Amino acid sequence: MSFRIGFGVDFHQLGEGRDLMIGGVHIPHDKGAIGHSDADVLLHAICDAMLGAACLGDIGVHFPDTDSTYKNIDSKILLKETVRIVKAEGYQLVNIDSSLCLQEPKIKPFVPQMQQTIASITGISEKAVSIKATTTEKMGFVGRKEGLVAYATVLLQVI
Amino acid sequence: MSFRIGFGVDFHQLGEGRDLMIGGVHIPHDKGAIGHSDADVLLHAICDAMLGAACLGDIGVHFPDTDSTYKNIDSKILLKETVRIVKAEGYQLVNIDSSLCLQEPKIKPFVPQMQQTIASITGISEKAVSIKATTTEKMGFVGRKEGLVAYATVLLQVI
Amino acid sequence: MSFRIGFGVDFHQLGEGRDLMIGGVHIPHDKGAIGHSDADVLLHAICDAMLGAACLGDIGVHFPDTDSTYKNIDSKILLKETVRIVKAEGYQLVNIDSSLCLQEPKIKPFVPQMQQTIASITGISEKAVSIKATTTEKMGFVGRKEGLVAYATVLLQVI
Ligand SMILES: [Zn+2]
Ligand SMILES: [Zn+2]
Ligand SMILES: [Zn+2]
Repeated sequence: MSFRIGFGVDFHQLGEGRDLMIGGVHIPHDKGAIGHSDADVLLHAICDAMLGAACLGDIGVHFPDTDSTYKNIDSKILLKETVRIVKAEGYQLVNIDSSLCLQEPKIKPFVPQMQQTIASITGISEKAVSIKATTTEKMGFVGRKEGLVAYATVLLQVI
Repeated sequence: MSFRIGFGVDFHQLGEGRDLMIGGVHIPHDKGAIGHSDADVLLHAICDAMLGAACLGDIGVHFPDTDSTYKNIDSKILLKETVRIVKAEGYQLVNIDSSLCLQEPKIKPFVPQMQQTIASITGISEKAVSIKATTTEKMGFVGRKEGLVAYATVLLQVI
Repeated sequence: MSFRIGFGVDFHQLGEGRDLMIGGVHIPHDKGAIGHSDADVLLHAICDAMLGAACLGDIGVHFPDTDSTYKNIDSKILLKETVRIVKAEGYQLVNIDSSLCLQEPKIKPFVPQMQQTIASITGISEKAVSIKATTTEKMGFVGRKEGLVAYATVLLQVI
């Protein structure tokens, strides 16, 4: 039995006039995340962790932000495609653990819906999709509410 | 044989009039970490990595900073409780690797005592509790000595 | 069959009059990374992740920046030595996944050469050496081009 591990990190600025999409879920807030796609920092970190574990490049290689195909795209579509190519390479996802760093708003109430969404797309149990959240105690660009960061780690089994 | 991986990150401001507790050990310093509990950034990152690997929420869910029970609490108690609930869910801890980012003081002399403390609470060998340290080369809020960050990754075996 | 996981993070300032070495490859750029050694942030993060997984201290313990032996040293030598001591402890490297955070320049064209370099030194396949890259969306010290950060995660098998 063999395994591979992966780690992803993603960053987005927060700004007005954008929806805040995190983990495939719309979070009501006066600011949203800025990016070429829907700027879903959590799904991007998970895609990158999966691609990294499978050694298949990164999200920028597969879904370049210079390609108009991905303009404002729903990142659930990017995760679905990531799952497909990682599986095609001969890997089965075992578990995801992720950490979201943002000063506000509170995302805890939305975590179960994010877990369901990601479990549904990746085909693993909701009990294998962990989403944690923390502030940065008001420090740095996250603490100043300029942006948000997500980290994700994944374990793949070679099948 | 099955495994789960987890990743945790924690942040605390540094300020005067507080003890600096890292890895369950008191570090002599003119500043301490600020928080609701004893603000032990390393133990918190380890708790979060264990909870994440087991998909059991995060430290904020289990030990909310709005609960007076946890006011100034020794984070060794939080780690002990985390170990208990992760074990009860059917997991055995394999190893911990952690990274502490702080500009000063030097924590290397205290690492063996931190390893002993964490090994004792988690029930694994000291040779499975890794604690690394780095500055951020004077950059960012860590570099300006405003705060400190800890990252931890853990491997759990399903028993 | 048993495994160990490790995680490393490294930081370096960018400045003029220095070469930019990343992943053992020279990247043409008007700034380089500042440090005691050649300041290869990616190789340092990988060394730290390997040492952490094997619970053998960190890069600062093995290659102290107060030791003139390591002044401007090629970090490929540090990685080679890290591989040696981790193997001597009874571990086989399974895979590496890494993330490089820098605002510029684009490092994608250099990734295959970095993979070859690291695969050659560590003795694993290039298909087990993942290198991803992202900006921080102009935020923080990376976004202001003051420095760069690398994260690496590794899986070791106990042999
Ligand atoms: Zn993104
Ligand atoms: Zn904390
Ligand atoms: Zn370094």
